[in-house]
Amino acid sequence: MCLKTHGGDIYSYIREKKVKPIDFSANINPMGLPKDVKKCLKNSINSYESYPDIYCNKLVEAISLHENVRNEQIVCGNGAADIIYRMCYAIHPKKALLIAPTFSEYEAALKQVGCEIQYYVLKSENEFKIQSDILNLINGLKIVFICNPNNPTGMLIDNKLLYEIAIKCRQINSYLIIDECFLDFTEEKENTSFKKYLCEFDHLVILKAFTKSFAMAGLRLGYCISSNVEFLKNIYKASQPWSVSTPAQIAGVCALKDKEYINKTIYNTAKERKYLTKGLKNIGLHVFESYTNFILFKIDYNIDLYGKLYEKGILIRKCNDFKELDNRYFRIAVKSHRDNIIILKALNEIINKG
Amino acid sequence: MCLKTHGGDIYSYIREKKVKPIDFSANINPMGLPKDVKKCLKNSINSYESYPDIYCNKLVEAISLHENVRNEQIVCGNGAADIIYRMCYAIHPKKALLIAPTFSEYEAALKQVGCEIQYYVLKSENEFKIQSDILNLINGLKIVFICNPNNPTGMLIDNKLLYEIAIKCRQINSYLIIDECFLDFTEEKENTSFKKYLCEFDHLVILKAFTKSFAMAGLRLGYCISSNVEFLKNIYKASQPWSVSTPAQIAGVCALKDKEYINKTIYNTAKERKYLTKGLKNIGLHVFESYTNFILFKIDYNIDLYGKLYEKGILIRKCNDFKELDNRYFRIAVKSHRDNIIILKALNEIINKG
Repeated sequence: MCLKTHGGDIYSYIREKKVKPIDFSANINPMGLPKDVKKCLKNSINSYESYPDIYCNKLVEAISLHENVRNEQIVCGNGAADIIYRMCYAIHPKKALLIAPTFSEYEAALKQVGCEIQYYVLKSENEFKIQSDILNLINGLKIVFICNPNNPTGMLIDNKLLYEIAIKCRQINSYLIIDECFLDFTEEKENTSFKKYLCEFDHLVILKAFTKSFAMAGLRLGYCISSNVEFLKNIYKASQPWSVSTPAQIAGVCALKDKEYINKTIYNTAKERKYLTKGLKNIGLHVFESYTNFILFKIDYNIDLYGKLYEKGILIRKCNDFKELDNRYFRIAVKSHRDNIIILKALNEIINKG
Repeated sequence: MCLKTHGGDIYSYIREKKVKPIDFSANINPMGLPKDVKKCLKNSINSYESYPDIYCNKLVEAISLHENVRNEQIVCGNGAADIIYRMCYAIHPKKALLIAPTFSEYEAALKQVGCEIQYYVLKSENEFKIQSDILNLINGLKIVFICNPNNPTGMLIDNKLLYEIAIKCRQINSYLIIDECFLDFTEEKENTSFKKYLCEFDHLVILKAFTKSFAMAGLRLGYCISSNVEFLKNIYKASQPWSVSTPAQIAGVCALKDKEYINKTIYNTAKERKYLTKGLKNIGLHVFESYTNFILFKIDYNIDLYGKLYEKGILIRKCNDFKELDNRYFRIAVKSHRDNIIILKALNEIINKG
C-alpha cells in the first residue's frame, strides 16, 4: 500500500529476520523516551477511553512556556507531517519553492493539492549549503519550505540569508515554513531558531516535533507556531479536531518538564556526532558537515552498503530517492556511543576489509 | 481555537469543576478499554520510540480476519474522522448528498474542499428514518454519506433502500460512504452491514472505528474497507504515511482478539438501551427509537436541561447545532447500569420535581 520511501521501517526487517535491527535509518534521540514520560504513560492508560482534548489545552500551555510564545500562536498535530499536509490543504498554493534534496513530505503534500514545484538545487561542492542565489527564485510563489537544519544533509542555512528570504517572501505574499524539527539537537538552537522573528513576519510558520527530540516517533506529536492566528485556525480546520491522541498529549506535557534530558541531548549529540564524523572520515568516506543528529556521507565505490549493513543487523537510510542524490549517498543517525562503535566497525569491515 | 461543537469535551468541565463528570455526551463503550488491551499498552511503551509501521501490517491482518475482507481492501487512519477528511481530499467532490441531521464532520470535511452540499432532511414524524424519496436526490453527485445507524438519531436505514441507493450511486458514478461506526453495538450487525456488497459496488466505502466499540477514543483508530484498491491508495496518499500511532496499532490488534468483549458489548447495549428508553419515556420525554448505543430524545418544555444536568455532574449532548434539530433535542449515550440509574434519577428530579 505504501507509495513512499522513508527511514525507520524496522517492521519489514523484523518480519524477515525475526529480530530488531540497530536502526540508524531514523533520526531518533538515542536516549530513548524520558523515564518520566514512560511513567506518565503507564499511569494514564485509563484516560485513553475518552476523546482527546480537542484544544490540547495542557499541552499548548506547556509548549507556550517552553517556546516562550503565546497559547494562540500554537497548533498541535499528529506529528509534524500531519501539519505539513494541513498547511498545504489550508493554503492550496499554486506554486512552491523547495530545496533539493530535502524531506520528501513537503513535495508529497504539495503534489496532493496539485501545486507546481520549483526546486533550489543544493550543490555538494558547497557542502549542500543554501547560497544567496536562492533569492532569485522567490517570485510568484505562495509557499516556501526551508528545513533547518536540512534533512538529509544536516546543514544549517545562514541566518542573514534566511532573514532576507523572509523579507522577500513577505514582499510577494508567500508563506515561509521553517521546519526546525532537527534544531533541538544543535548547540546553537537559541541563536539559530527563527522564532524571534515570528512577530515581524505574519506569513512565517515554524514547525517543530517531539518525534525525534524526545524519541516518541510512535506517539505522533508535532506543532507549529506563527503569529498569524487566522492562518493557524485554517490549519486546525483542515482536518479533524481530534488529531492529537491522548497519549501524545500526556507524553508531550511530561517531556517538556525534563530540562536535564533536553540539555543532555544537545551535549550527547555534539559529542557523538564528532566521534562518528571522525570515524567515518577515517574509514575513507566523504562526510558532509552536520549540525544535528544525523550525518550524510558519500561513497564512491560501487558497493551495496545498505545490503551489507542490513545483513549485519544494521539499518541505514539509502538516499537515492532524495532529489539530486543518488545511490552513493547514505544518511545515518547519531546514536548511542555503543551503537556508533558498532556501525563504524561494521563499515570498516565492509569497506576496508571487504 | 476549536471552531466545532462535539460531545466528549470532558476537559472544559474538569477545568471548571476540578472533578470528572459522568459523560453521557460521547458514545463510548461503558465496558471501558478491554483488560488485555490495557496490558498490551502497558508492556509496549518502549516501542513508541520507533516510527509506527506505515503499512499497519499486523493491524491490517487482524482487521482482515475480523471483517473477513482481504488485506488490500483496508486502509487505517487516525480515527474514522481522519479518513473522512482524507476521502474528501482524495475525491475533491463538486457536489455531495448528506442526511440532516447527521455527524457533523462529513459536512466540515466537504466544506474544506469547497463542495456544494445537498441535504436530505429527515423528519421526526418518520422517526428520522430515511424514506425512498431520497432516491430523487441522487443526481449529479460525486459522494454520498450515509451513517448507519445514524448519529444522532440512532436510526437504521432500510436494507433494501440502501441497496437501491448504492445502485443509483453506481449509475451516476458517485462514491457511497457508509459509516458503520455505530453498527458494532447492534444485534443485527451481521444482517445490516453493507460489507457483503463490497465486491458488487466499486464506489462503495465502509467506514469503521475502534473509538467507540472498544472505548479507545483517546487512542484514535479507524479504518475503511472497499474493493476499490485504487481509491484506497488515494485515501492513503492524502496525508502522511505515519497517521496511525504505535499504541493505536497495538491496541487495535489486541482488541480484536477479545471476542467475549465484542459479544458482551452487543448484549449490554441492547439491555441497557431498553432500560434507558423505558426510563426516559416514564419521565415523560419523547424518545426516538435507537438501534445503537445512544438515544435521542426531545423535551417540549422550555428548560435548560443541559445546564441543570451539568450542575449535577452529568454531561449530555445538546443537539441544537445539528442541522434540523434545535434546543429541544438531546442525545445521551447508553452507559453502565449504574450510570443509567443516575441520569434517570437526575432527569426525573429536574423534570418532574423541578
